[in-house]
Amino acid sequence: MTGHRRPLLLTQGDPAGIGPELTLKAWLQRTEASLPPFAVIADPAHLEQAARSFGWDVPIAPAEPADIESVFPQALPVIPLTRSVVAHAGKPDAANAPSVTESIETAVRLVQGGSAAALVTNPIAKHVLYDAGFRHPGHTEFLAALASGREGKAYHPVMMLWSEQLAVVPVTVHIPLSSVPSALTTDLIVLTGRIVARELRERFGLPHPRLALAGLNPHAGENGAMGAEDQDIIAPAVAILRTDGIEVAGPLPADTMFHARARQRYDAALAMYHDQALIPIKTIAFDEAVNVTLGLPFVRTSPDHGTAFDIAGQGIARPDSLMAAIRLAARLGNRSEAP
Amino acid sequence: MTGHRRPLLLTQGDPAGIGPELTLKAWLQRTEASLPPFAVIADPAHLEQAARSFGWDVPIAPAEPADIESVFPQALPVIPLTRSVVAHAGKPDAANAPSVTESIETAVRLVQGGSAAALVTNPIAKHVLYDAGFRHPGHTEFLAALASGREGKAYHPVMMLWSEQLAVVPVTVHIPLSSVPSALTTDLIVLTGRIVARELRERFGLPHPRLALAGLNPHAGENGAMGAEDQDIIAPAVAILRTDGIEVAGPLPADTMFHARARQRYDAALAMYHDQALIPIKTIAFDEAVNVTLGLPFVRTSPDHGTAFDIAGQGIARPDSLMAAIRLAARLGNRSEAP
Repeated sequence: MTGHRRPLLLTQGDPAGIGPELTLKAWLQRTEASLPPFAVIADPAHLEQAARSFGWDVPIAPAEPADIESVFPQALPVIPLTRSVVAHAGKPDAANAPSVTESIETAVRLVQGGSAAALVTNPIAKHVLYDAGFRHPGHTEFLAALASGREGKAYHPVMMLWSEQLAVVPVTVHIPLSSVPSALTTDLIVLTGRIVARELRERFGLPHPRLALAGLNPHAGENGAMGAEDQDIIAPAVAILRTDGIEVAGPLPADTMFHARARQRYDAALAMYHDQALIPIKTIAFDEAVNVTLGLPFVRTSPDHGTAFDIAGQGIARPDSLMAAIRLAARLGNRSEAP
Repeated sequence: MTGHRRPLLLTQGDPAGIGPELTLKAWLQRTEASLPPFAVIADPAHLEQAARSFGWDVPIAPAEPADIESVFPQALPVIPLTRSVVAHAGKPDAANAPSVTESIETAVRLVQGGSAAALVTNPIAKHVLYDAGFRHPGHTEFLAALASGREGKAYHPVMMLWSEQLAVVPVTVHIPLSSVPSALTTDLIVLTGRIVARELRERFGLPHPRLALAGLNPHAGENGAMGAEDQDIIAPAVAILRTDGIEVAGPLPADTMFHARARQRYDAALAMYHDQALIPIKTIAFDEAVNVTLGLPFVRTSPDHGTAFDIAGQGIARPDSLMAAIRLAARLGNRSEAP
């Protein structure tokens, strides 16, 4: 680490979603929200037109990574795409898919090249990209594939939802609830727990991270009376993680592990499925939760919401989550070793 | 309804658990906590001994239901059991099972006879009762069986967890997570929704109750992309409840329906399984949540915790949930028609 804080890179996201207006709003609030310098990889003309449509005074300055810090106080630095973007807010268009993927590819190249501290990705709409031939299961997998392509090794990305009050990691994510018990393995929990513990140490700066593992069944199965997975799958993972020297509690009854006093006992909670992780954090930190991808060779955060085509272009979308993502990316990215 | 507010009856619960000390604490805090008159159905000598052991000044007064209101300001009214209770805090004993069940039986008889407004049950330990030959699946089912025995009709009890901020009802409760998808039927959701809507009207005094039904899968299945139950089982239940004239939203993505703004849109949320209901309410209202049994011919509330044998007898258990249960029982019981 050097004393110099490298800037952050935002991706464009879907240009018909709320990404452009959130990016403009975040820059407008840069001073009162104490945001670190960032640039967005986008079409400067499209952002100028968006700012005009809202009547917002946001000077747009095409920039190189090295200029971001000096430009940022006076103008929103934009690293220009090679193509121009014509987008209508609220009307997704597969014709813009190449600009969406180019922004992400450029961001990965720049962050891996060391000219940025971390990435903050604006929301994309998978179905729009699929219509244009995109072949990755999602945004995160695309980032992992790009990173692997450059470094020649496979990464297992892990999704963390983070807020000041609570950090949660779902071990299984976007699968039907009925598939969760069979998808859950001791190996998967151990792999996830190791990545979380490592990144809590290396990126969050916690020398002795404490994990809490949720049980799968009500009351964590009550000694097998309500389901065997807590004893047969989760408890062995707890044992293995402990032999690694990681401080782990669990399997814990999921309903009593997320209130304020309980949250003091761990740094991150591993939940066994999507809603078990997302219900508690979205209940207490709906507007401030940040999505952090662990397990990649660089820091990537993103706001915890989608493209919101239904309200895009009205200027009413709240930038809280994007600004929280920017702040967290700076905190994690400037602690990490430069690649 | 008459101008006269009938008193509440507390059951003893397991005498080796925290029930006795919470009951004593609640009476001690009756004035500052604005608690309505209540009696406990117990052994007066056991409660006297418990108060002495903690060094608390709680006069114990054996009483008839008709005396509760006049006795309550000066002493804790106790409706005596026919048997004496010798219990050691923290040491459950099957020999006390008859006192546990007698207290519940007497409470049901008195509330159904009209001499009490509602019941508040202290926690019991099922395994202790099982050792003594108890044959009901749980506390609530025992109450339903007693009510049915007196009235000659079957009741379907429904568990609601209630707090000032949020009320949730799990449609399935104490079963393994892997059994939830097959246990969930449109009929069960409709039956549960009808009982909840009826009691919100009749007991909670909401003329037009609004229900929100959670989806089962992540993002409520995303139009079938992640599981079919949201479309095939839950959506038809929503449609049927609407034809009843009930205002129902759903199936909703479970992760985004419990934050403060979202909670303004409904009076009770129906969750599809235990943790989906209990995670949000215990996350935001851990000490204040109250268990309310709907679907019985009388009002029954209980604190949202167990016997806590591990801390019983130390005088440190928090009476918040029992006091909230007492307040809610008075509110609901005095609104209900006398049986």
